[in-house]
Amino acid sequence: VLRSSELLGHLDIERPTFLVDRERVARNIQRMVERAAAADVVLRPHFKTHRSHAIGRWFREFGIDGITVSSVEMARYFSDDGWDDITLAFPFPLQQLPRVAEISEHIRLGVMVHSTSSVDVIASLRAPGLRVWIKIDTGYKRVGLDWDDDETLEAVARRASDRGLEVVGVLTHNGLVYQERSREGVLRVHRESVERIRHARDVLMAAGLDDITVSIGDTPGTSAGGTLEGVNEIRPGNFVFYDLTQAALGSCSADEIAVAVACPVVAVYPHRGHTVIQGGAVHLSLDALETGDGERIYGRVNPEWPAGAGDGAPLIRLSQEHGIVRTGGHGAQNIEVGDIACVLPVHACLASNMHDRYLTLDGEWLDTMDVGDRGHCTTLRFRGSSDER
Amino acid sequence: VLRSSELLGHLDIERPTFLVDRERVARNIQRMVERAAAADVVLRPHFKTHRSHAIGRWFREFGIDGITVSSVEMARYFSDDGWDDITLAFPFPLQQLPRVAEISEHIRLGVMVHSTSSVDVIASLRAPGLRVWIKIDTGYKRVGLDWDDDETLEAVARRASDRGLEVVGVLTHNGLVYQERSREGVLRVHRESVERIRHARDVLMAAGLDDITVSIGDTPGTSAGGTLEGVNEIRPGNFVFYDLTQAALGSCSADEIAVAVACPVVAVYPHRGHTVIQGGAVHLSLDALETGDGERIYGRVNPEWPAGAGDGAPLIRLSQEHGIVRTGGHGAQNIEVGDIACVLPVHACLASNMHDRYLTLDGEWLDTMDVGDRGHCTTLRFRGSSDER
Repeated sequence: VLRSSELLGHLDIERPTFLVDRERVARNIQRMVERAAAADVVLRPHFKTHRSHAIGRWFREFGIDGITVSSVEMARYFSDDGWDDITLAFPFPLQQLPRVAEISEHIRLGVMVHSTSSVDVIASLRAPGLRVWIKIDTGYKRVGLDWDDDETLEAVARRASDRGLEVVGVLTHNGLVYQERSREGVLRVHRESVERIRHARDVLMAAGLDDITVSIGDTPGTSAGGTLEGVNEIRPGNFVFYDLTQAALGSCSADEIAVAVACPVVAVYPHRGHTVIQGGAVHLSLDALETGDGERIYGRVNPEWPAGAGDGAPLIRLSQEHGIVRTGGHGAQNIEVGDIACVLPVHACLASNMHDRYLTLDGEWLDTMDVGDRGHCTTLRFRGSSDER
Repeated sequence: VLRSSELLGHLDIERPTFLVDRERVARNIQRMVERAAAADVVLRPHFKTHRSHAIGRWFREFGIDGITVSSVEMARYFSDDGWDDITLAFPFPLQQLPRVAEISEHIRLGVMVHSTSSVDVIASLRAPGLRVWIKIDTGYKRVGLDWDDDETLEAVARRASDRGLEVVGVLTHNGLVYQERSREGVLRVHRESVERIRHARDVLMAAGLDDITVSIGDTPGTSAGGTLEGVNEIRPGNFVFYDLTQAALGSCSADEIAVAVACPVVAVYPHRGHTVIQGGAVHLSLDALETGDGERIYGRVNPEWPAGAGDGAPLIRLSQEHGIVRTGGHGAQNIEVGDIACVLPVHACLASNMHDRYLTLDGEWLDTMDVGDRGHCTTLRFRGSSDER
């Protein structure tokens, strides 16, 4: 049976619904808070994973007071709820410079520079409250100064000094950990990244910058207990929910996955070994996980969630609205149209992003930044119109 | 240069924005209307591609009065805007039966049956206004009765008669066309599917059903000019926008692609051959297209859109918010931070779904069903609460 009756009996689920187990979320936060405290580093969680005022408030109960976001809109959304120490860990568009300046007048806002010209841009803002981080690329090759390009690092340090910017630290996101497939691999790549950002810090300090804080991102490296030697701050995000990818990387166990997408079973085809759910790309995202035998899966059904293991029937195909679960060998005879399948997502950040509201197991709806007018109204303008919309 | 200054000069784009070229949309609709008229078939376009009242109204100007949708919420959304002939081409969850019954009291609503038990479910509704379609699987193996399982087809026909349901037709969606990589392949698979649904129709009519209409879906088969022999109705959706996948399948030419996601350039790395845009999985979806040389791409930048060709620099990596464009050989020396890159999407239906509003080239914002309260308020309830939310 795909339906988890104890879980869902009291909830009235009639369409794909993003479920949050508040107790698991609280445990996940607590564990990371303890890990940060033990290593004497600041925990500045990335809130792009949940994008929700309500879940942000749960973090506050654990003493968190500084956060990370990935867009100007997200900075604004959380500052609206009282967060006053926010790092915008994305090279925001030049078009949004005035918004960044405005936000920085009200809160302690951190921004990144990643080139000499971005130093000039930030300096041009003449926003004394801004906290400036230098983004370092430790091998992921996405955004940032190459960690081993001493010459450019020195040039950026000089430019920042010349322009009167006070640099608070160096910051990296080591996305390479997601290319690993074992905890050992994660730990190795994590260690390498930490060594590299320390090198960049040393180069910058030798070039005249003082008191450089080292801030690193990513859930796998911090969850797996990787080295934090020389690190002052961590910015993991995904750990609040976890997912199948994190479980595969050794970041979490299945019973730490705190979210599932509840999907109605709409058709059953025993002769194909298929169960069809309303649960497609628009409910889960298309992020896929390669299993040991080379198959790409889009989630797994856990009939006992929030109890049970994470090894249930795999979601093997996704259309826009449909998902196909391979139930051949998984008690297909017990599955009925009308059941609700709890799908553990491959990537919780992208799956949650497909939902404007989440439902807790207590039946409480949690709004996200997509609900209401804030997400839109502050972000989209048409030149020539006096209205912001 | 990635910026298309003629296009974007008058628009104030500061974050990833879904652009719609209304003229191209109108041409795409007109062409499909003419194709349907020439073949003497009804065009019942699938509105899941745009999910927008405004774009739905553009269809009305071409005489369209019947549409297809993929969820109960979408049926409700479009009936709210005056559409009174809607086929719900998805096996909706049993939990939504009361909503289906309610909608059917107000409009001509078509629903699908795909098994004897789903016949019983629909019959139990005692909703005389419902128009019942039998869903046939012509090889895609997603939802529907196997086209060559005569015995089950006959059983369903008998059950429908016994339960007093009037079946209006047979309906298929031949998703197999998306596994092809040439127009020839599409036409072959399309023809096979049409032959198969005609076989199913013949079996059902021999078993006692009368006046069976044949309705087929999918944009590639109908755009490529495949056979419509014995077909009475077509339900393509994507053609209103088109995208890189459709261009690869021969459904359209590059100058028919009517949408693009405008993404700010946020970093340039000439030594890596990379340009980084704010344009990630949350703006484009993760749908990918395999190119001739086996590379997976997530879009292409067309610097001249809505003019120009569709062969621009490919988007080779997507994170949640970042996209990496390989600009090595594409005039990278002209790209600057602050430019706007117009990304042609791999899959317009999924890319549009990431945006709550679209911007026309005239600067008009078009709402979708995700905006306002209708999409949510009619769909999510918590048992024990008297409020619908």
